[in-house]
Amino acid sequence: MNLNNLKLHHKLVPENYLKLALEAQRCKEIQMKELLEKRKLPDVGWTEELIEYVIQQLAALDNNNFEHKIGLGEREARMASKLVIRRNYGFGHGIGRSGDLLEAQPKAVGSTIVAQLTNALVLDVMRLQGIKSVKCCFIVPMATGMTLTLCLLSLKKRTPSAKYVLWSRIDQKSCFKSITTAGLTPIIIDTVKRNEQDGLFTDLGKFEENLSSTDREEILCIMSTTSCFGPRNCDDIINLASLAAKFDVPHVVNNAYGLQSTYLTHQLEQANNAGRVDLFVQSTDKNFMVPVGGAIVAGFEESPVRAVAKAYAGRASSSQSLDVLITLLSLGKTGYQDLVNQRKLNFVYLQKQLEEFAEKHHCRVIKAKGNPISLALELKTLPTDVATQLGSMLFTRGVSGTRIVIKACSKTIDGFEFADWGSHESNLDCAYLTAAVSIGLKQPEIDAFIHKLQQCWQDIEKKTNKDTWQ
Amino acid sequence: MNLNNLKLHHKLVPENYLKLALEAQRCKEIQMKELLEKRKLPDVGWTEELIEYVIQQLAALDNNNFEHKIGLGEREARMASKLVIRRNYGFGHGIGRSGDLLEAQPKAVGSTIVAQLTNALVLDVMRLQGIKSVKCCFIVPMATGMTLTLCLLSLKKRTPSAKYVLWSRIDQKSCFKSITTAGLTPIIIDTVKRNEQDGLFTDLGKFEENLSSTDREEILCIMSTTSCFGPRNCDDIINLASLAAKFDVPHVVNNAYGLQSTYLTHQLEQANNAGRVDLFVQSTDKNFMVPVGGAIVAGFEESPVRAVAKAYAGRASSSQSLDVLITLLSLGKTGYQDLVNQRKLNFVYLQKQLEEFAEKHHCRVIKAKGNPISLALELKTLPTDVATQLGSMLFTRGVSGTRIVIKACSKTIDGFEFADWGSHESNLDCAYLTAAVSIGLKQPEIDAFIHKLQQCWQDIEKKTNKDTWQ
Amino acid sequence: MNLNNLKLHHKLVPENYLKLALEAQRCKEIQMKELLEKRKLPDVGWTEELIEYVIQQLAALDNNNFEHKIGLGEREARMASKLVIRRNYGFGHGIGRSGDLLEAQPKAVGSTIVAQLTNALVLDVMRLQGIKSVKCCFIVPMATGMTLTLCLLSLKKRTPSAKYVLWSRIDQKSCFKSITTAGLTPIIIDTVKRNEQDGLFTDLGKFEENLSSTDREEILCIMSTTSCFGPRNCDDIINLASLAAKFDVPHVVNNAYGLQSTYLTHQLEQANNAGRVDLFVQSTDKNFMVPVGGAIVAGFEESPVRAVAKAYAGRASSSQSLDVLITLLSLGKTGYQDLVNQRKLNFVYLQKQLEEFAEKHHCRVIKAKGNPISLALELKTLPTDVATQLGSMLFTRGVSGTRIVIKACSKTIDGFEFADWGSHESNLDCAYLTAAVSIGLKQPEIDAFIHKLQQCWQDIEKKTNKDTWQ
Amino acid sequence: MNLNNLKLHHKLVPENYLKLALEAQRCKEIQMKELLEKRKLPDVGWTEELIEYVIQQLAALDNNNFEHKIGLGEREARMASKLVIRRNYGFGHGIGRSGDLLEAQPKAVGSTIVAQLTNALVLDVMRLQGIKSVKCCFIVPMATGMTLTLCLLSLKKRTPSAKYVLWSRIDQKSCFKSITTAGLTPIIIDTVKRNEQDGLFTDLGKFEENLSSTDREEILCIMSTTSCFGPRNCDDIINLASLAAKFDVPHVVNNAYGLQSTYLTHQLEQANNAGRVDLFVQSTDKNFMVPVGGAIVAGFEESPVRAVAKAYAGRASSSQSLDVLITLLSLGKTGYQDLVNQRKLNFVYLQKQLEEFAEKHHCRVIKAKGNPISLALELKTLPTDVATQLGSMLFTRGVSGTRIVIKACSKTIDGFEFADWGSHESNLDCAYLTAAVSIGLKQPEIDAFIHKLQQCWQDIEKKTNKDTWQ
Repeated sequence: MNLNNLKLHHKLVPENYLKLALEAQRCKEIQMKELLEKRKLPDVGWTEELIEYVIQQLAALDNNNFEHKIGLGEREARMASKLVIRRNYGFGHGIGRSGDLLEAQPKAVGSTIVAQLTNALVLDVMRLQGIKSVKCCFIVPMATGMTLTLCLLSLKKRTPSAKYVLWSRIDQKSCFKSITTAGLTPIIIDTVKRNEQDGLFTDLGKFEENLSSTDREEILCIMSTTSCFGPRNCDDIINLASLAAKFDVPHVVNNAYGLQSTYLTHQLEQANNAGRVDLFVQSTDKNFMVPVGGAIVAGFEESPVRAVAKAYAGRASSSQSLDVLITLLSLGKTGYQDLVNQRKLNFVYLQKQLEEFAEKHHCRVIKAKGNPISLALELKTLPTDVATQLGSMLFTRGVSGTRIVIKACSKTIDGFEFADWGSHESNLDCAYLTAAVSIGLKQPEIDAFIHKLQQCWQDIEKKTNKDTWQ
Repeated sequence: MNLNNLKLHHKLVPENYLKLALEAQRCKEIQMKELLEKRKLPDVGWTEELIEYVIQQLAALDNNNFEHKIGLGEREARMASKLVIRRNYGFGHGIGRSGDLLEAQPKAVGSTIVAQLTNALVLDVMRLQGIKSVKCCFIVPMATGMTLTLCLLSLKKRTPSAKYVLWSRIDQKSCFKSITTAGLTPIIIDTVKRNEQDGLFTDLGKFEENLSSTDREEILCIMSTTSCFGPRNCDDIINLASLAAKFDVPHVVNNAYGLQSTYLTHQLEQANNAGRVDLFVQSTDKNFMVPVGGAIVAGFEESPVRAVAKAYAGRASSSQSLDVLITLLSLGKTGYQDLVNQRKLNFVYLQKQLEEFAEKHHCRVIKAKGNPISLALELKTLPTDVATQLGSMLFTRGVSGTRIVIKACSKTIDGFEFADWGSHESNLDCAYLTAAVSIGLKQPEIDAFIHKLQQCWQDIEKKTNKDTWQ
Repeated sequence: MNLNNLKLHHKLVPENYLKLALEAQRCKEIQMKELLEKRKLPDVGWTEELIEYVIQQLAALDNNNFEHKIGLGEREARMASKLVIRRNYGFGHGIGRSGDLLEAQPKAVGSTIVAQLTNALVLDVMRLQGIKSVKCCFIVPMATGMTLTLCLLSLKKRTPSAKYVLWSRIDQKSCFKSITTAGLTPIIIDTVKRNEQDGLFTDLGKFEENLSSTDREEILCIMSTTSCFGPRNCDDIINLASLAAKFDVPHVVNNAYGLQSTYLTHQLEQANNAGRVDLFVQSTDKNFMVPVGGAIVAGFEESPVRAVAKAYAGRASSSQSLDVLITLLSLGKTGYQDLVNQRKLNFVYLQKQLEEFAEKHHCRVIKAKGNPISLALELKTLPTDVATQLGSMLFTRGVSGTRIVIKACSKTIDGFEFADWGSHESNLDCAYLTAAVSIGLKQPEIDAFIHKLQQCWQDIEKKTNKDTWQ
Repeated sequence: MNLNNLKLHHKLVPENYLKLALEAQRCKEIQMKELLEKRKLPDVGWTEELIEYVIQQLAALDNNNFEHKIGLGEREARMASKLVIRRNYGFGHGIGRSGDLLEAQPKAVGSTIVAQLTNALVLDVMRLQGIKSVKCCFIVPMATGMTLTLCLLSLKKRTPSAKYVLWSRIDQKSCFKSITTAGLTPIIIDTVKRNEQDGLFTDLGKFEENLSSTDREEILCIMSTTSCFGPRNCDDIINLASLAAKFDVPHVVNNAYGLQSTYLTHQLEQANNAGRVDLFVQSTDKNFMVPVGGAIVAGFEESPVRAVAKAYAGRASSSQSLDVLITLLSLGKTGYQDLVNQRKLNFVYLQKQLEEFAEKHHCRVIKAKGNPISLALELKTLPTDVATQLGSMLFTRGVSGTRIVIKACSKTIDGFEFADWGSHESNLDCAYLTAAVSIGLKQPEIDAFIHKLQQCWQDIEKKTNKDTWQ
């Protein structure tokens, strides 16, 4: 509605009052114009009102929201429930078309803009976070694992003969399943210790060995991981990228929750400079604080990314893009960077707290310098069953997200056996507990966690026979 | 809040007034209890208030909504934007766990219930619609095409050597891409005419031929389709199921928008009786009038369905389940059945209108009895370019969903060439227009469509040189 | 946001798609333009989306919603709670200024438009309903009773010496209190029967008598009532208007829920033709199905109405105007008229049902032709205590709104004693039950009421000693 | 819904997961129980989810929200628009009954609880703010001015012969109109200066003089004001209370926005100790940051307050109570006290900024110690027209709420003439500008105001002929 052009009767409101009020709208109009024309994240977060206003305006452009609508197709974005319409702001057509997630839909101009605009804003965030050379990215409404599967399948379309994925072991189930679900065979390369102090590293030697010994036509790609549970470090993606370039093998990086850490984003940027990174994938929920369900496929060149978009069979949900769009607009550049900076401070704070705890209780925090998110506290003194018990005590006391990793716990997934599952290696020394510092964590949560940890420790000291302890 | 147990001061409200008001709540409580304990669709649709109440109660069970929350993991369902929280009712954890969409999440009791309850209600609808033997189903937050890919990949996990999918041709892009994206090779079996009158049918002979001539180890499955654009009929899934049983080959049915038609659901039920149907897949948006983005995997036995759930790598969005849950509760049994019945009447109505139109304009509506949803109007008299023009005229006048299929329009997808793309066969006689009757279509839309069609026809009669017409 | 002027990158959406989508917005823009420029009720109700869109646009014009706001006053429409902002669409300034409800606020252009526009739409409805000569009206966010008080106080400003209000008795407490609260003295004129069959009528003779015998300077006004509980009829406002003109005395009509009945609105129109009606007041909730809390002051000339607006000391809530605006836009002309027509049918239906009941149970429905809303069922056979019991049985069974009026029940209000309170007269023959048919009542409610009435009647027949019955 | 009692199938969720989740609900249940049983403001503000949950639970107790409803009355809280239902949370019955705002409604148990609970929480806030002896209060959904009218009318019911209100002049229009609208005659007592430095004070001598000289039967009450524009001070309500006691005359205090200042609340508390305060009235919007439209009537004894509640003719809107309830729950004690403390700091800050400005520009801030909210900056050097211009320049630059008071500006309201309107006295020395510090004002707004003031000052220095300045 363009109120500027209306001739309102003076009985509704005096003209001079209206004029002043309309002038006050200009700065909102400029904000919206800049967003849509420049497709960059605004510096300062928007108000909820402004966000909803833009979204409603866009939704009005989808044909299911037209006043007069004649729909004779099998899919017309009709919605039966008002509640559903309301929570989806009237968006029903999804994104993409005929099996290309980046194609525009003639019926759904608003949905198309939402999808493309969100992709543009995410690209902007990636660059702000330090991946300056990133060229192209898009949101897929699937889990990070399934999105990795889709990336692998799109690579397979190029080289149908390939069947192996060289994979630097990380004990996170869906990451591994992304390979087997794609119908591919993982070549698992355990991480290795350099010494007792600094965590687990990529076994570059084994990678080179395998690349040399395997028929290149049969290697689909190298798959590496940045963000992970301590004491595993970020993979040495810089040298893996060099190897990928040297052996002319694609390289896919699982950057699951790495976008929130400038340390990890700089690894990615440098890896691209040093060699070859074809695709890197990250989750929307962990990096942008939205509900679970989306991932971002990104690359330093356009064609491999577009190939993934074209591999998705069908039209996809726009719900995930919408959540990301709303969130990024509400945060703005400064809001997102505040979260990122606060996370860094929180990490240092948790590390300090855990070290104090460790000192008191004769255990140790492992200094894995290549892991800026997750910390590991060795539980040397605790017998395995007691360590396990500590984990469940923490959970019932409201602590979620910590993990207890214990020795001699092997696991078989899709036919592959993993010794010492959870530890990313095959000869774990002793049990440990991991704790991660994600964006959005509040410092009082850290204090409460340390407090609960102390309580539980005391409780198990009392309850268990301490003689069994080491 | 259990108001029954509160001791309210008489200054707030007299006790006898309160008592009567509390008694009036019982019928709501019974509705909720029945829903959660019996897991069946209510007979009559619920009010929005009641639906939101249940959803909010369930959301409160997810740990991100707990008053005191200590989250030390990499994913804690924190949400940065209040708007996002509100539109997701506070749900952030998604569904499934560690790569199994049907596993419960200890952190997310509410999300788990939403997912499982929705699956149960969908199963109930399937049985109501006539697929009485269906055993198990679940919602996947992916397009129908991608879901078919996932089904194929889950079959491939069982028989890694298989590479061929025997596919009864249907010219819908994402359906075909579901095979190529899975890294598999389609064996395309064109549909055939029996005579000029009754549309296109499955070429059973070719199927049997291929099944006989191909190494069984290399055949992943038969893939057939129920709902489709006229004049293609529903595949002869009953006889395909027999062949599948005979040759011991899996059979996947694409039932994209077939759940809304009792004709098609009965085909499925009979196919299962006659032979083998391992999995059948349908879209949530087209059958339940929710936004695009979800599909339902179903089966007559539990194990193949569960295998698909386990193939999904990662945790998935719960947004699609939530939309289906809200919609089914708001419709109830009677609401859904009214939609289904109204659709049948609308189909007859459109057919009649089109036949009247055809008579006036010397064209013909093809009587494809095996297609209860989509109708084809032959445009014998129109030259190809004029037919194409008719399509875009309709679209600019607000008619969406109709398609114009023309001769000699070949297309290559992922390396496979299709003659006469759009027609499901390789020797199309003449151009035609399709129009579909989906649930939710209103009769005035049909009238408006016929009216616009007449207008456009007159316009092109005026504009184009009628001498070029046949 | 004027999307027409934006230069969107083709990556966001192709230009031709956007063009079509923007064209589809025009009819919405025309609807909004017409509403704001013509200030008439739309023929057809608007969608929720369109209503919210206009309201949000208007709210943006209030200065508390400006992006940059510097408020150094004692009242700046700041709101502390987001929930409150949301439910009020950001409106906080209220309506009116410095003690004139019709004055525009420079700070609150949107609130001003909402208030004036709503008043204009209400005026339109009044004319549609048959009060063709009405000149001016406005909403006051107060109960009908308090609004009558305000009307009386505004009349008193003109003639400070006046102290009497000649009031045709209606036994509705707040109506009577509107006089005493204004500090005025009611001269109560009981209604009278003409015969046993047709209910209660205005005692015109007594009115003329009092007008003749009282010092004209001391008479503030005549106060009459249209809508009321049967078997009281609508006051004879036509002849009262003549008397008011003859004696040069103001005439205020309480039209509480009379706007929904075209019979009553025509009485008002004719009364104005026949003589003098200075002000008439009706409730927003009863006539427009909005929450309790507002009233409409209307008149056939502008000056007495404006005088009331100027008597309100302070700035008032805009919440009531907003509810009315939303409701009228969502109904449109046809929607409102459908409600009005359905009510008439429901009245006839209830009357028929009650007459059948009466016949069976040897009682009688009184034929008060001047009451088109409320029916009275005489309970001749029931002793007083049993009649009372019937009323509370109905209430505990979920029937609300019916009243039992019994003999010999006197009541004192603000020092005035009323014999046979509830009956509008001082010599009630026998107990009766009233039931009213308002807009929005559904026919199944009538059926359910009759059913419950039968059940209760049977129950009391069983429980009470029928020998005590007459 | 009491999930504790449900027997959920393990397929929905494992029992042990559910148990933990249900335990986590307890602290919410305790919060709700305490609120409803103790009727005190919670220490810490509630989440939006919890607030909405309680409100929805209460709304469910009103009979219009019952599943089966049979309404045969003229007012059944039916609502035609879903948007209206949603924004009112389903509340439609309003508060009060038959002309007593404090009476419970049998049909509307939820509305009754909302009204009474809100009144209880407001009472709690009043005591927290220092009015420890307050006994009773309630919210009226009317402007503060109209509410003062209602208070005066309720006093008039007791002493019908009274006609005068002794009023300490304050130049705020609706305050004065509250007297004339009630049909009463104000005896206006101008405020007086003690010296040039410290603002305007109550003329106690004149009050005593008038009380002595007027027939006591004809005096309705003394009406005084606490919060006001500087340089008027809070009336000397302590000594006025003594006079009221001495002469046995009621005393009504207009405490419009005084509840936010502990200085003013302590004046009230002390006034009650020193003498007689019958009623004091404050606005909900200015003290609680809710939309305009409500006021609070309070007293140190119950009977005069209840008398006001009984004077309101009709049932009133519950919308204002709901806004206050939501706001108070969202703030909690600490939230409200933070606002109050911040306001005090802001006042000191603005004073300092204005004094610095004054020093630079050769003007003066008047030290009215009895006004803790509004400051006056004398504009000695500016000619009248230039001062007026300054005011409108500020407004067009986005500064709202400041006032310019100029000499020789008389005004007539309802027949009473005020010399030097705006100045609360009849011989104003020179123009001044007022600025108020309310709760919710942000410090950056003060900075922006000072900045704009400087800009405007420079502009008018340039534009106007400075020779005309003094």
